[in-house]
Amino acid sequence: MASHWEDFYSQHLPPSDFEDNRTLLKEFCERHNNSGERIALITSGGTTVPLEHNTVRFVDNFSAGLRGAASAEYFLDHGYVVIFMFRLKSLEPFTRHFSGQKFMDMLELNDRGPNTTITVKPDSVDILAPILARYKVAQEGGRILYINFTTVQDYFWLLRAACECLAPCGSKALLYLAAAVSDFYIPSNEMPTHKIQSDGGPPIINLQLVPKLLAPLVNLWVPQAYVVSFKLETDENLLVSKARDALKKYKHKLVIANLLQTRRHKVTFVTIDDSFEISLTRDQTLSGIEIEDIIVSNVVLHHTDFIHCDQY
Amino acid sequence: MASHWEDFYSQHLPPSDFEDNRTLLKEFCERHNNSGERIALITSGGTTVPLEHNTVRFVDNFSAGLRGAASAEYFLDHGYVVIFMFRLKSLEPFTRHFSGQKFMDMLELNDRGPNTTITVKPDSVDILAPILARYKVAQEGGRILYINFTTVQDYFWLLRAACECLAPCGSKALLYLAAAVSDFYIPSNEMPTHKIQSDGGPPIINLQLVPKLLAPLVNLWVPQAYVVSFKLETDENLLVSKARDALKKYKHKLVIANLLQTRRHKVTFVTIDDSFEISLTRDQTLSGIEIEDIIVSNVVLHHTDFIHCDQY
Repeated sequence: MASHWEDFYSQHLPPSDFEDNRTLLKEFCERHNNSGERIALITSGGTTVPLEHNTVRFVDNFSAGLRGAASAEYFLDHGYVVIFMFRLKSLEPFTRHFSGQKFMDMLELNDRGPNTTITVKPDSVDILAPILARYKVAQEGGRILYINFTTVQDYFWLLRAACECLAPCGSKALLYLAAAVSDFYIPSNEMPTHKIQSDGGPPIINLQLVPKLLAPLVNLWVPQAYVVSFKLETDENLLVSKARDALKKYKHKLVIANLLQTRRHKVTFVTIDDSFEISLTRDQTLSGIEIEDIIVSNVVLHHTDFIHCDQY
Repeated sequence: MASHWEDFYSQHLPPSDFEDNRTLLKEFCERHNNSGERIALITSGGTTVPLEHNTVRFVDNFSAGLRGAASAEYFLDHGYVVIFMFRLKSLEPFTRHFSGQKFMDMLELNDRGPNTTITVKPDSVDILAPILARYKVAQEGGRILYINFTTVQDYFWLLRAACECLAPCGSKALLYLAAAVSDFYIPSNEMPTHKIQSDGGPPIINLQLVPKLLAPLVNLWVPQAYVVSFKLETDENLLVSKARDALKKYKHKLVIANLLQTRRHKVTFVTIDDSFEISLTRDQTLSGIEIEDIIVSNVVLHHTDFIHCDQY
């Protein structure tokens, strides 16, 4: 049995920087709601489940955060402002294109003592310039807010706080829940303080199911918002049926279902009475089109319809 | 009971890019052994333990990889060539100083159509220039080889292959085993193929202890090399005693022991008949000195003594 969501909050403390993040979220939502903007909350990356209070070991979910990071760029392109709520160290919009050594290799050092300069090599400028331009527009216009989490407990606290700030935006708020949230956790009172010693044989891990936040989120926190959840499976036979089950249970608008093996070029949009596949053609893949470009365009169309229905 | 190391290799396949990495390791070690260089193999970052064959979930170790990444830079400064064997996405030498947005914020876009240039802002040049210079010396001189792993199984295969290539270097080889290797794993034949479903209640995870590779490494694979292992604990009372136990058991040269809570400014060097603490003063910390700078200087002194003893 999953614990109840209210019990989860009463048993786990908020992260230490919680109040700062809540202030940032509140200011961001109020500012953009006042100017009538559409706001997308994007969650991205996996959550960890600590096995010890002084955390050395944890259970993690597979997720680099590419889906969320890429989608954030496309929502900005469609005129949305974006709350990017991501797992620390997972991919981020814009910087995702230049990780690690790629960045150092693009740079040219012109060593002239006190007049030393560093420039981007001409052949890298073509790739970097358009991305840097979009980054600066989002950054300088205050159109993106970065909020990070690590554990599933952090995620729970931040997601609820974001919803409270988004509620006044009504149907203009879109929740795009792409984070790979753990299904289970170790209750705080069952967690050892120190690193589990291996001398006594392999550790035994007592896991408990996490409460499903979609239920209070859709019904209580942001009842007017457009809510999209994601479902990742490895077994194709379960894909649509499990997505439909989730829609019936939580009553949100859209599940984007995908298989681990094919998720970079194929997803299935599942609504309560329809399902259709979106996939990249070989030509699209070769020309560098990302599936998130097409996913976001479709989600924006659905969201636009939803806002219009809400208004009339 | 831990499984035997030979059984571990017979039960787990090498990673798919194993042969490519083995070729790179062999070429690197032969080239630098021929020119009489000292070679440091640095392992860095945590290893994952997959819970499913189509991996969605895994157990992970806490480790950003800062110790290994910083140490690699200082070994290069001391004239060593370096094999940097790291967990994919953990910190890397040089690039560790400029992760994520820091990099984008350093850049200035000078939009002039086809003559667009991108330069590093003058106030960032001071910080970036010396690091970029060291990076380019290492890179262009072929003085560093990057090899990455993700799972504990990958790590096992790559570490043994590196040892086989290092053996001919004798006492000039130094192994600096800073990676946080998992103590346990799920045997391949007990792992489910698909993502564990949460409908049936929380999953039960059957863990097995991993064999300790230090035993065959010290005795069989690189018997002439200088081997340093690391020990991370959260309980100060266990720190030196557990380090000494490891030295007695595996017969290597040095354990660098540290507490999770204080590891950024204090470590303890433990040899079979001695132990001493290295810590940063407040002034050193404020002036930006890293403890890895001092750790590596001390390890290099020990290694130099060791090489001389070996020669006479």
